Amino acid sequence: MPKRVNHEERRRLIAEAVRRIAADRGLEAVSLGEVAAEAGISKGLVQHYFPSKDAMLRYTTATLHDQVESRIANGVTEGAPTVRATVLALLPADDMSRTEALVANAFLVRALKDPEIADRFRAGHAQLRETLAAMVAGAQTAGDLSADLDPILEADLLLALIAGLGDAVLLGHRTPKEAAALVDHHLSRLTDR
Amino acid sequence: MPKRVNHEERRRLIAEAVRRIAADRGLEAVSLGEVAAEAGISKGLVQHYFPSKDAMLRYTTATLHDQVESRIANGVTEGAPTVRATVLALLPADDMSRTEALVANAFLVRALKDPEIADRFRAGHAQLRETLAAMVAGAQTAGDLSADLDPILEADLLLALIAGLGDAVLLGHRTPKEAAALVDHHLSRLTDR
Repeated sequence: MPKRVNHEERRRLIAEAVRRIAADRGLEAVSLGEVAAEAGISKGLVQHYFPSKDAMLRYTTATLHDQVESRIANGVTEGAPTVRATVLALLPADDMSRTEALVANAFLVRALKDPEIADRFRAGHAQLRETLAAMVAGAQTAGDLSADLDPILEADLLLALIAGLGDAVLLGHRTPKEAAALVDHHLSRLTDR
Repeated sequence: MPKRVNHEERRRLIAEAVRRIAADRGLEAVSLGEVAAEAGISKGLVQHYFPSKDAMLRYTTATLHDQVESRIANGVTEGAPTVRATVLALLPADDMSRTEALVANAFLVRALKDPEIADRFRAGHAQLRETLAAMVAGAQTAGDLSADLDPILEADLLLALIAGLGDAVLLGHRTPKEAAALVDHHLSRLTDR
């Protein structure tokens, strides 16, 4: 029987190479030759799967989105499904989340020009917001957070806070531990005293 | 008398061209030819002032830092020098601050590799933190913010929050008005009720 080629796996392999290059040297370094070398395949094969750089970057954004989602779902399944755990799972605290954050940053300017990438960012943000708002509401029911909070509004504040802290951690202005302490300080104000 | 060339002005002209290109298409689009065309001067002249792309990007980071600082100082002088005004001056709410935010984002990956650019980011962040902490302390003295707050810790939270809201505004997930409302909600918790 002939060996079957798993096309989806090949595409993922290429997207992973794009992510590593973008995280390391920015999107400016993402070229056909660099991607082929990083993925260990021929330029022709890269072109077979992605006829243009735009197509390659769009697919990379999609896989990034899936990865962040599954990491958060795992983080939440492993520990207690708390607001705190969900927010802290978004911090670039290890190699994987650090690469994700770098790639998301590298794609930001492009998201403003490419409607497909912008939609992906928007959908990811909306989904996170919904997840977090539901967790805030759950914590209110459990009596862990004040009953008079607006879950959506608090989710928006938490997402903005963790995005800003993420940049500070990436740049080395804060350690992940310091960022977590700031999140705790913020959360402490959302409980009934 | 021969016409004197203002070298500093020429450098600024080039840096402005770099910023426009980076904000529009990312650092990947910043090349000798593009910068010369955008600045309306010859490639040779660009090379005369900046022998390498690295040198050009470093200078651009420095001018960006100066511009953000002076805009905040102006924003604070024009209106009341409040914590709120200082924080909101950091939002990408108009063309100028939008370009600044886009360029800062475009430079983030590079900051991780180039110690000179990283130092510039760090110094800018430290200075903002100090300015904001001093304003929090002033507001405490004036009775506008709770006396029991730690000014540095609150400055850190505010800077993270506004950075995250800035990304959301850039990406169109939030309007500047919605971001300001979130800042107000956050600040309302820092007063004695």
